Amino acid sequence: MTQSCFSRVTIDPKKLQANYTLLQKKVGAGCSVAGVVKADGYGLGIDVVVPALEDAGCRFFYVAQLEEALIARSLTDCPVAILGGLPEGCEKIYHQHSLIPVLNTLGEIARCPVDLPAIWHVDTGMNRLGIDPQDVPELLKNHPAPLLMMTHFSSSDERDDAPSVAQVALFDSVVPPSFAHSICNSSGIFKNALWHRQQVRAGMALYGLNPTPEFFNPMSGVVQLEARILQIRAAKAGETVGYNRTYTFPADARLATIGIGYADGFLRSGSNRTALYWNGQACPVVGRVSMDLVVVDITHLQGLAPQEGHWMEVIGVHQSADQLAASWGTIGYEVLTSLGARAERVVLSVS
Amino acid sequence: MTQSCFSRVTIDPKKLQANYTLLQKKVGAGCSVAGVVKADGYGLGIDVVVPALEDAGCRFFYVAQLEEALIARSLTDCPVAILGGLPEGCEKIYHQHSLIPVLNTLGEIARCPVDLPAIWHVDTGMNRLGIDPQDVPELLKNHPAPLLMMTHFSSSDERDDAPSVAQVALFDSVVPPSFAHSICNSSGIFKNALWHRQQVRAGMALYGLNPTPEFFNPMSGVVQLEARILQIRAAKAGETVGYNRTYTFPADARLATIGIGYADGFLRSGSNRTALYWNGQACPVVGRVSMDLVVVDITHLQGLAPQEGHWMEVIGVHQSADQLAASWGTIGYEVLTSLGARAERVVLSVS
Repeated sequence: MTQSCFSRVTIDPKKLQANYTLLQKKVGAGCSVAGVVKADGYGLGIDVVVPALEDAGCRFFYVAQLEEALIARSLTDCPVAILGGLPEGCEKIYHQHSLIPVLNTLGEIARCPVDLPAIWHVDTGMNRLGIDPQDVPELLKNHPAPLLMMTHFSSSDERDDAPSVAQVALFDSVVPPSFAHSICNSSGIFKNALWHRQQVRAGMALYGLNPTPEFFNPMSGVVQLEARILQIRAAKAGETVGYNRTYTFPADARLATIGIGYADGFLRSGSNRTALYWNGQACPVVGRVSMDLVVVDITHLQGLAPQEGHWMEVIGVHQSADQLAASWGTIGYEVLTSLGARAERVVLSVS
Repeated sequence: MTQSCFSRVTIDPKKLQANYTLLQKKVGAGCSVAGVVKADGYGLGIDVVVPALEDAGCRFFYVAQLEEALIARSLTDCPVAILGGLPEGCEKIYHQHSLIPVLNTLGEIARCPVDLPAIWHVDTGMNRLGIDPQDVPELLKNHPAPLLMMTHFSSSDERDDAPSVAQVALFDSVVPPSFAHSICNSSGIFKNALWHRQQVRAGMALYGLNPTPEFFNPMSGVVQLEARILQIRAAKAGETVGYNRTYTFPADARLATIGIGYADGFLRSGSNRTALYWNGQACPVVGRVSMDLVVVDITHLQGLAPQEGHWMEVIGVHQSADQLAASWGTIGYEVLTSLGARAERVVLSVS
């Protein structure tokens, strides 16, 4: 059945572990790197990601929702915290499975059982989830001390540090230094060592996305994505390709039809914009991305010609997830979390 | 655990069946409507879709890939055809499971065992998959007669019929009328009764998307998508929301943070563009869609105020999948096939 899968995702846990080690070195011994493994480990597979990170020394995990936490719990005995808070009626199940709620609202803080260790999330500028900073001093007087106090950067991937500086200042103005702090996401880690505190929360950088988008990527790519050539065909000058005839061939062309489409997470916004790679040579997508297929132009290829059944590179040595994302008008995070359910999944050996 | 899921997809198989019945009536007794159930039944769940369609009278199914065909085969004894062709080395497994290859290339026609019933796909203008029309007469002389001859429209959802007319003319110029023909997709069904022939292939229309985008949708919505309010919060004039501060509040505002994001298939292209609905009132997404969350403005809401834990409508009575798609800059197909793995899935009763 080697020929039957039309796309293939290859995960390299050693690269994931190398990324973890790089981040842990960066923050130093006084700080620990927690692994953010929500959304099925950013699409890589939480069952692969959690054991690999734990092997590399990771001792704390974050997920978004209870269901993800229960999967994480089946994979590790380390602390697992749930960013999505403490939904009403779930107190008991958190307790049973030693899950740590990240408390985002006054209601959650009021409702959290005194014997359930919790993290408090102070909102300092996202306006998304979290407690109003001005409520923090009073809340601290009337509730059990949280395990950790966290906040979340809105703009740490930008060149301008000012928004992050303001967020940290606001956090420090209400959160006593006696608490353990968790401020930085992946990009924040590379911004300012004074912000590392006791814990940082690494997501995208672990998975090989670039936490320093203005500079060379210090992380290693963890994911490779390939798709198979289903047909090679000729098109004549003046003919069109794909739905609604959005591309007309200026000259006779040679095409490869590839077995990946938006149902596989290859976003339709890549129509007429993205390239796939053959032996390091870019082959532009022509026409609309369809549900199961894209068509690329291979007229210009030098050297050995691709054949039906061969693989083309979607993410790999020649095109990073960040670059693919840029061609889709989005960010690498969305590329990774969209990776298709229909792809064959290969996990490389750790040893 | 009722409160623990942050998003919920509700599938109504009765609506799916009503759509099937409407299409079958439209094409009449001389023609049969095949169900296209690739990409996990356009994201609705192939395990729900195939039995419901078969109950409604559907007797022929199309998928894209072998793996999908094997799932379909476990759900029905009806013919299952694979649009993605006949990958090398898979001949035996197709035979074992009575799967019908849609042969797209000369190589596949040459390789197809004589005792494996097959469909031939003649490309008449997609330039994607399929045999060159000029090769058809010669191929027919030298190979077993196909079960069915098909082609696929590029532009049947457009007001202008000319491209479809040209495709049918080209098809008819090489395919003898003695063969069973399958030409129309969902939109094609509504274009011209002369194109219905022996079989039509319905996908999007079955799932409630509009096959006549220039006119009122004749189909019934099959999918409802809701997401939960995790937090209600106040923002002050001049504050920003979400990653990279892309939205600034012109006045004091009331916000709801909703438990759905691009990892749930709520595409990031909906940032600052899409609305969710509360009791029929539109609540605009403010700021960037993030992985697990979106924030909507609820300042203007009249009547009963929403509360933390309540559901908001993403797809439903007030916003169709097609409308949601338009706000994302894409089509309803991509909305349906992106529907998240993290959502709770509710299938309504058929009786």
